[in-house]
Amino acid sequence: MRLTSYTNYSLRILMYCGVHPERLVTIPEIATAFGLSRAHLLKSARQLGQLGYLQTVRGRNGGIRLARLPEQMIVGDIVRALEDTSEFVECFNPARNQCRIAGVCELSGLLRRGLQRFYEELDTATLADLVGDGRELRLRLPVVEVA
Amino acid sequence: MRLTSYTNYSLRILMYCGVHPERLVTIPEIATAFGLSRAHLLKSARQLGQLGYLQTVRGRNGGIRLARLPEQMIVGDIVRALEDTSEFVECFNPARNQCRIAGVCELSGLLRRGLQRFYEELDTATLADLVGDGRELRLRLPVVEVA
Repeated sequence: MRLTSYTNYSLRILMYCGVHPERLVTIPEIATAFGLSRAHLLKSARQLGQLGYLQTVRGRNGGIRLARLPEQMIVGDIVRALEDTSEFVECFNPARNQCRIAGVCELSGLLRRGLQRFYEELDTATLADLVGDGRELRLRLPVVEVA
Repeated sequence: MRLTSYTNYSLRILMYCGVHPERLVTIPEIATAFGLSRAHLLKSARQLGQLGYLQTVRGRNGGIRLARLPEQMIVGDIVRALEDTSEFVECFNPARNQCRIAGVCELSGLLRRGLQRFYEELDTATLADLVGDGRELRLRLPVVEVA
């Protein structure tokens, strides 16, 4: 059981933007700060834009920034939107299910309730909680000039 | 985010044994009932034995059976024992972590608490709850003679 890297990287993008609320940041800058690939981050950033979490400003001095106040971004909502739990077990997806006890199996409902509890816990925090005052995160993620 | 097939198949083995408490069952029989590979099930059964959930009787008429009453097998405990969440996100495993904000990142603790909620929900059920009276499961999993 793992959170996908995709969701993980997306959360890092949002946290990085949250740490620098006063300016536009760039994908190459985030990639350098976290030591991650630009391509992966670009894909995440695009979806975060579509979901209404990021704003993109185009052009030479362009970049990305949070599209809402971090206090309004509930972590559970973000992870629900990014993380595909429709295949947490095969019976969650009727189109692909091959398990012969689907429909009469009590485990399925139990796992669904478990995931609900997981997300409810994530609903207790916002991006603002993850960012805090940003000081410690800024120390770990020094801003570097990138091409 | 997915439950591993390994955990999923292991739970099916336990449920199958729970449905036939009066006799020994065999891996080929479970493989046929669920349409799964014997090799995968064997691996799971071996670990379930090591964990004290299954008993193996060797010999020509041998097989496996539950090593405890299903009422005493808490689903959360079983899944905790089988499912590796030590790498749910990379920072859960300090030996392999590469994330630069590990230690100052609030997300890590939030995800840990989320997983705790997930398992707490799974702790509300035992194998006996999953098996019920076994009638519906038996209908879906007809017993077939296998070599």
